Amino acid sequence: MVCIIKQKINGKDYYYLRKSVREGKKVVSKHIAYLGSNKKEAEKKAKEIIKNLEKKDNLMENVKMNESNELKKAEGEKEIKPEEKLNEITAIASKRGIFFQTANIYGGKAGFFTYGHLGKLLKTNWENLWRQNILSLNDNFYEIQGNNILPEPVFRASGHIENFNDPLTECKKCHFRFRADTFLEDKGIENAGSLSIDQMNDKMLELKLKCLRCGGELIPIKQFNMMFPVNVGFNEEKAYLSPETAQAAYLAFKEEFQTTRNKLPLGLAIIDKAYRNEISPRQMFFRLREFSQAELQIFFDPDKINEHENWDEVKDKKLRIKFSDKENIEEVKCEELNKKFEIPKFYLYHASRVQDFYLNILKIPKEKFRLRELSKEERAFYNKLHFDVEVFLNTIGGFKEVGGIHYRTDHDLLGHSRVSGKDLSISYENKKILPHVLELSFGVDRNIWTLLDVFYSLGKEGSMFKFPPKLAPIQIAIFPLVKREDFEKIANEIARDLKEEFNVLYDKSGSIGRRYARNDEIGTPFCITIDDDSIKNKDATIRDRDTTKQIRVKISELKNILRDLIFQKKNFADI
Amino acid sequence: MVCIIKQKINGKDYYYLRKSVREGKKVVSKHIAYLGSNKKEAEKKAKEIIKNLEKKDNLMENVKMNESNELKKAEGEKEIKPEEKLNEITAIASKRGIFFQTANIYGGKAGFFTYGHLGKLLKTNWENLWRQNILSLNDNFYEIQGNNILPEPVFRASGHIENFNDPLTECKKCHFRFRADTFLEDKGIENAGSLSIDQMNDKMLELKLKCLRCGGELIPIKQFNMMFPVNVGFNEEKAYLSPETAQAAYLAFKEEFQTTRNKLPLGLAIIDKAYRNEISPRQMFFRLREFSQAELQIFFDPDKINEHENWDEVKDKKLRIKFSDKENIEEVKCEELNKKFEIPKFYLYHASRVQDFYLNILKIPKEKFRLRELSKEERAFYNKLHFDVEVFLNTIGGFKEVGGIHYRTDHDLLGHSRVSGKDLSISYENKKILPHVLELSFGVDRNIWTLLDVFYSLGKEGSMFKFPPKLAPIQIAIFPLVKREDFEKIANEIARDLKEEFNVLYDKSGSIGRRYARNDEIGTPFCITIDDDSIKNKDATIRDRDTTKQIRVKISELKNILRDLIFQKKNFADI
Repeated sequence: MVCIIKQKINGKDYYYLRKSVREGKKVVSKHIAYLGSNKKEAEKKAKEIIKNLEKKDNLMENVKMNESNELKKAEGEKEIKPEEKLNEITAIASKRGIFFQTANIYGGKAGFFTYGHLGKLLKTNWENLWRQNILSLNDNFYEIQGNNILPEPVFRASGHIENFNDPLTECKKCHFRFRADTFLEDKGIENAGSLSIDQMNDKMLELKLKCLRCGGELIPIKQFNMMFPVNVGFNEEKAYLSPETAQAAYLAFKEEFQTTRNKLPLGLAIIDKAYRNEISPRQMFFRLREFSQAELQIFFDPDKINEHENWDEVKDKKLRIKFSDKENIEEVKCEELNKKFEIPKFYLYHASRVQDFYLNILKIPKEKFRLRELSKEERAFYNKLHFDVEVFLNTIGGFKEVGGIHYRTDHDLLGHSRVSGKDLSISYENKKILPHVLELSFGVDRNIWTLLDVFYSLGKEGSMFKFPPKLAPIQIAIFPLVKREDFEKIANEIARDLKEEFNVLYDKSGSIGRRYARNDEIGTPFCITIDDDSIKNKDATIRDRDTTKQIRVKISELKNILRDLIFQKKNFADI
Repeated sequence: MVCIIKQKINGKDYYYLRKSVREGKKVVSKHIAYLGSNKKEAEKKAKEIIKNLEKKDNLMENVKMNESNELKKAEGEKEIKPEEKLNEITAIASKRGIFFQTANIYGGKAGFFTYGHLGKLLKTNWENLWRQNILSLNDNFYEIQGNNILPEPVFRASGHIENFNDPLTECKKCHFRFRADTFLEDKGIENAGSLSIDQMNDKMLELKLKCLRCGGELIPIKQFNMMFPVNVGFNEEKAYLSPETAQAAYLAFKEEFQTTRNKLPLGLAIIDKAYRNEISPRQMFFRLREFSQAELQIFFDPDKINEHENWDEVKDKKLRIKFSDKENIEEVKCEELNKKFEIPKFYLYHASRVQDFYLNILKIPKEKFRLRELSKEERAFYNKLHFDVEVFLNTIGGFKEVGGIHYRTDHDLLGHSRVSGKDLSISYENKKILPHVLELSFGVDRNIWTLLDVFYSLGKEGSMFKFPPKLAPIQIAIFPLVKREDFEKIANEIARDLKEEFNVLYDKSGSIGRRYARNDEIGTPFCITIDDDSIKNKDATIRDRDTTKQIRVKISELKNILRDLIFQKKNFADI
C-alpha cells in the first residue's frame, strides 16, 4: 500500500510518499519519495510516481532493516527506528541540498544521485581529509588523474571482461529480469553470491523458485557484464567506462615510477568517478551506477612484505577484527596479528592507519567499526589478503562495506604485462622484480552515507547531524542578531575573513532561534552572533551545536579560537 | 621523414621521436613521442610508433605554428621557436610526471591524457583558485556534483542530439575518414565551420578536393554525432555521456532554487569530466575525448539583466575586447561597452571578473589575453551574447579559446520544461518567470596547457616554468645541504609543518645545484636549505626561483614569510 504522509518541520508542512511492505512477519512503512511542500503538487507528483512504480527499479526496495544491533543513544537523544531515520535523512537531504535523485524532472533513474550544494561540501571535506591522512602515509605516495574511458585490452588484462558479471535470471512470462544471487539469499541460501552458476541453477530448481513479480517460470541464470561499453572514434574502437579507478593507476605505473625516481614503495592515488551497470541499484549510496572512489595503489617489493619502516608506531595498536571463521569482533594487537596469524607487517601497518582514519579523524564510534576478513570463497581469486572496512549503519541493515584493504599480489602488473606485451618489471636494488600491489580502496559516496547515518541525531530540538567540525558542510554560520546596518557590516567583515580558511554561511533572515535550528539541522558546529555588545566591546558570541552553550570572545581572537575548535586542538568547554 | 633525436638534459640522455613535415614553404620538425632514456628500448618503441603512425590519428598532426605574433622575451631569456617549445614542454611533462598519454603500454589512444603527480597538483591548484575567485562572486553561488551519464531526453531538450555533430567525409578508396570543415579551412576556405553541409559539399566539388591521404574520390559530407551513447540497465535505456557539465546544473535548478531559499541570481557550478567523441583529437589539450570542465551557470531574472549590485566596482574597468567585425584588440571601459555597445551590465560585471581572474590571479600577461566576440554565424543560435576567453599560446598557433561567457537566454530551462513536461518557471518577486542563464565556462585542461605555454621560459640554466607561486605544483622544496642526521631532522620538521598549508617536497639526494635545477624545471618558486648555520643560529636560506637570490631567515618566521610570498602579499625583494 502506498500513501502520502504530511510531516511538520519547523512549522512548515512537507509531503512524503511511503509504502508499506511485508518484511518477514511484520509490515513496515518505507519512504519512497519527497513530494515537496505544496499539497497539490505533492498529490500530482505522487500519482506519477505510483504509475511508474511497477515499471522501474526502486531505489529503496532492497533496503533491509536490522534493528537488533542498534547501539545505545547518548543522553537527551530520542530513540528512532531505522526506517524513520532513513526517511528523516532523505527528507533533510532533499530539503537542504545534500543530495537528490538526478534528473527528477524526467522521473529520475535508479542508481544516479546528484550532490546539492551542502552534499558537495561534505564530499569535498571527506576527500580532503582522505588526502591529508591516507596520502601522507609516505612521502612517495602521490595523487594522479587518469581516464574513465579505457581501451578494451585493459579490461582483458584486469579480468573484468571475463569475471565482472552479475548472475541474472528472467521470467518467461512477464520478462522481468533480476539478480539470481540476491534472490537466492532472500530465499534463505546463505552466501549465494559465492556459488557457481550451475550451483545457483540447481538451487533454483530445488527450491522451485518462480518470478518474484508474477510467479511465472524462470529461464536458467546467465552472466551479465556490468561494465558500460563505449565506442571511440569513427572506427568504433572498443572501450569501456572503468568500473574502478585502480586500472588507471596500473597503466600509469611505469611512467610514474620513472618520474618519481625509481623508489618503492610507490603509491598512486586516484579520486574519480567509476561506473557499473548495476541491474538493481539499491541501498542508497551502496549500489550506484555512477559513483566516486578514492583508491590508493601501493606498489612494493614483495621481498619486503614483512617489514615497514614505521612498524614500531603500530605494533602495539589493537585492530578491531572480525575473522571470517568467527562470530564476534576481536581487538587484536598488530604484533599478535603478525606473529600468530601471519598477516604481514606491511599490510598491518596500512590497516592500522586506515582504522586510525576512521576512529580518530572521521570520529566513527569504535563500536561501529570493524575490519572484516573475507573468506577464500568471498574474495577475488587474486586477493591473497582481503579485509573489508565496515561501519555499522542501521539505516541499511548493519555492518556495511565502505572500503577494503586488498593484497592483490602481482595480479595487475602481470596481467598488463601479458596482454600489452610490455614487461612492467623494474630494476630495483640490483634485482629485477614485478612489484606487488596493496590497494586501499574506498567508496566515497558510501562514506558520505556513513557520515549521514552515524552522525544523525534526534534531540529535543529536532533532527541534527553531529558531524565532526572538520567534516561539517558549513563550519561556521554568522548572524547579525537583527537586521541593522552596523551589525551587518561587522558580520560581513568577519564572514569574509573566515571564508579564507573555512566553509562559512552568512545569514541575516529569520529569528535567531530559527537560524540556530536551520544550522543545527545541517550540522553547523559553531554559530557566531553579532549584537549590541559587539559594537561596544568588539566581541561576539560563539554558540556550540552539541551543547547549545554560548561564550563571548573578542572579535580579534575569533579566527584563532575557531581554528582550534575546528581542528579539534581544543574543546568548546576549554574556552 | 621520421627520426630519433637524442637530447642531453642534466647530463642524462633522453630519446625523442621527431617527424619532418612540410608547412607551406618550409619543412619543420615536429615532436611525436618521448621514447625514454634507454637507447635500445627507445629504438624498439620508435619502431612500433612508426608502424602505427599511418593507422591512427596523430595528436600533433594539426598543430599549426604561428610565430609572427610572438611576444618579446624577458631579459636573460633565450629565444625559442614554437615547435621547440612544444617539444620541450612535452619532454619535461613526460620526464617529470606532469602529463603523458594514457595507456601508453597499449599504444595509447588519441585524445586521452593522464595527469601525473605534478600535473594533478597543478590542476588542483587551478581548480581551487577558480573556486575561490569565480564562485565567491556572489554568496548565492554554489558548487554541486551531478552525473556524467544522463538520460536521452536530457539531450533532446538541450539540442545535442540534433545539433552536436561534426561534418565528416570518407575516401571511397582507402576509407579514411576525416573532418570536412577543418579540411576546407586548410584548403583556404575561411570559417568553413559555419557553412551548411550543402555549402561544404559544393566547395568540395568546386575545389575538386581528394582524399588527403591517398588522393582518392570522397563521399558527400555527413553529420556525425559527437556524444558517446551508453545503455543503462538490462532494458538498455538510452543515455549519453554528457558533453558538458552544464546539463547536470540545469537538471538541478529546481531543487537547488528551493533548498537555497528562492533567491536570484543563483549560481550552480560544476567541476567534472565531459566526454566528446572527437574524430580528430588534436592540439594537445584543446580537442580531447575525455576532459575536465569548470562551469558556472548563473540563473537570473531577465528583467534585471541591465543591473548588478556591484556595477560601480567594474564600470571604469577596461576590458580587452576583440570585436567580431574588427581586427585588433581594443581596451574599452565597461561603462562604454554598456552605453555604446548595449552589452548589459549583468554580463559585463561577470566578464570583467573573468578578466581579473586571468590577469590578476593566474597572472597571464595582459598582451596575451583577450575577450573575442563571436559573430552571429560562429555562435550557437541560443547564445544572444558570446565572447570567448582567449589566451595567446604560441605552441598551438596564437590566440586560443580557454573559456567562454555565454548569455544563453531561457534556452536551457525552456527546453527542459518542454521535453520533461515539468514547468521550470518559478515565483519570484510576485511574478512568474523562467530565469535566464549566463554561463561562465572553462576548459580545465586547456587552462593547464595555457599555464605550461605561458609560463615556460628558457633561461641560461635551462628550461623552467615561472608559475605564480600559488599555482606551482610544488610551492616549497626543502633540502638538507648534505646528508647529515641533524640537518635532516630539522628539514623534516619544517617540511611536516609547512605541509599543513602548502605543497611541499623534501629532497635530500644529489648536489644542491642539481636539486635547485630539478625544482626550477618544475617551477618550484622557493627552495629552503638547512646547513651548519641552521644548527647554530636556527635559521635557513630561502632561494627565489626567478632571481636565484637567497636570503637567510629565522626558522620560527619561515612559515609567515612563505605565506606572504606564496599569497603574494610581499615580493621576494621586500624581505
